[in-house]
Amino acid sequence: MTKPIRLAVIGMGKIACDQHLPSIAGTQKFELVATVSRDGKPSVDGVQCVRSIEELADSGIGIDAVSICTPPQVRHDIAQFAIEQGWHTMLEKPPGATLAEVIALRDAAKAAGVTLFATWHSRYAAMVEPARAWLRGREIRRAKITWREDVRVWHPGQEWIWQPGGFGVFDPGINALSIITRILPEPLFVTKSQLFFPGNQAAPIAAEVSMRDRKGVPVEMDLDFRQEGPQHWDIDVETDAGTLSLSHGGAKLSIAGVENRSEENAMEGEYPGLYKRFAALVWASVSDVDVSPLRLVADAFLCGRITMVEDFIE
Amino acid sequence: MTKPIRLAVIGMGKIACDQHLPSIAGTQKFELVATVSRDGKPSVDGVQCVRSIEELADSGIGIDAVSICTPPQVRHDIAQFAIEQGWHTMLEKPPGATLAEVIALRDAAKAAGVTLFATWHSRYAAMVEPARAWLRGREIRRAKITWREDVRVWHPGQEWIWQPGGFGVFDPGINALSIITRILPEPLFVTKSQLFFPGNQAAPIAAEVSMRDRKGVPVEMDLDFRQEGPQHWDIDVETDAGTLSLSHGGAKLSIAGVENRSEENAMEGEYPGLYKRFAALVWASVSDVDVSPLRLVADAFLCGRITMVEDFIE
Repeated sequence: MTKPIRLAVIGMGKIACDQHLPSIAGTQKFELVATVSRDGKPSVDGVQCVRSIEELADSGIGIDAVSICTPPQVRHDIAQFAIEQGWHTMLEKPPGATLAEVIALRDAAKAAGVTLFATWHSRYAAMVEPARAWLRGREIRRAKITWREDVRVWHPGQEWIWQPGGFGVFDPGINALSIITRILPEPLFVTKSQLFFPGNQAAPIAAEVSMRDRKGVPVEMDLDFRQEGPQHWDIDVETDAGTLSLSHGGAKLSIAGVENRSEENAMEGEYPGLYKRFAALVWASVSDVDVSPLRLVADAFLCGRITMVEDFIE
Repeated sequence: MTKPIRLAVIGMGKIACDQHLPSIAGTQKFELVATVSRDGKPSVDGVQCVRSIEELADSGIGIDAVSICTPPQVRHDIAQFAIEQGWHTMLEKPPGATLAEVIALRDAAKAAGVTLFATWHSRYAAMVEPARAWLRGREIRRAKITWREDVRVWHPGQEWIWQPGGFGVFDPGINALSIITRILPEPLFVTKSQLFFPGNQAAPIAAEVSMRDRKGVPVEMDLDFRQEGPQHWDIDVETDAGTLSLSHGGAKLSIAGVENRSEENAMEGEYPGLYKRFAALVWASVSDVDVSPLRLVADAFLCGRITMVEDFIE
């Protein structure tokens, strides 16, 4: 049995506590040796907590890898520091606030000989791989992404999401993009984008984005943070063999109206899947940095037409 | 002597007539065999003009390569069609309206075995290579880009520049980015961006962008389309051996206040330089697609804070 990878988790916010810690506790592949939190408050009994990555480096704790769960705006400098220590580095999504900083990290990791894993947790939702497998060889006619959630329910107090580099509604929307870029056979690009900004915020609260692939297959994306009542995280793909519907963010799959309950290719859960993959990357000494979902978001901003809408007050 | 490359120029607007046609006329490496213009009006005596790239393909004219000078918003589909014909393809800057479409073209060209050249004409300004050579080995402390021009003088009637994908003031600003990414040794990324949109336009009229490299060297960029009086296309780089100043868009160089009039490394002119390079790429069967200037623009939009300013009426 290989020795567990000694891991520190950095940025003990909602996603770290809800998802990362339970997944790490559930695997033998990692040993949690430290948490890093600005407030210095321990998150796990018996696991040392420090206030910064510099303090972590000075602490004498033996570290092989870090998992960075901070907001995207501060992720680059922490990751760059980690890479300089020779630590394998896993990044929550999105991997950064800009594309160029992620490319710079990728190059730095390569030069340092450490693993960099830019994660897209939604790609590890149970039915994403079965959807991908079913779509192979089908003629794809069009696709529709509907990602509408109530920001007050799902992002309480996350002020960073409204700041530049927080992406607003594209913070969940990039999850949909990480799925669609995984399941469709051809790369997509943005042809039209409408961005709806609350007058008092620096990031969009809703967006309508038209994409297509080079064969002309249209993909429409409807993102909205103002959704009350039923919430939607759905992708529908029309093919020559009927419509494939991924719902619940990739957890459920139906084909031509029939729910697929097969376990074949199904994943064991998003974050357990991420950590399994991270361990495999570390052991193989390779990186996995796919910027295509972030590139589509950048493109949606680059060619976006902006409309100002009602102020958003949480 | 190698046979000249049979070339068609597509999109006979200002840049094609002012720059491309004279450069093509001045080299033996290319033979202009057709122009493509929606209005069907010939641009060069004795050279056939057609209305579309489809008509060009049907015309029976022997074509080896095309140079695409249309506005960026329509460039992808024309380029994709050209690549499918097996024609080597040169793209005016910016290479597209989005990053992902340029990546798709790069991959399509590779698969088709044709040369794709995403040009950045400002990199061929006379003093860019001397500046790059001088900066090697210097300690770089900071840099400042000042790119202020009167849009009414330099972009008369160019409505596309105000449309999504036209980039507004980043259309000239990307020239500065193409130079700075060439002359500085380390890649840059955006840390802060302010975008000023006229209330009646879909693209910014001014911008203030802060960048840095991974060593922390700051690069500030000041872009403004509202400049009257003296115009500025300047890059100043502070080093341990004094300040290097590139002015006039890269045509003039001074170091520590002394103008460099040396011919060493100087280029023969922007567009002649581009066509010389395109011929060399075609003969070597390789592509040159550097998206880094466009990526920085996309990042400036992605993390940009938007301010609405006075309407712009040409």
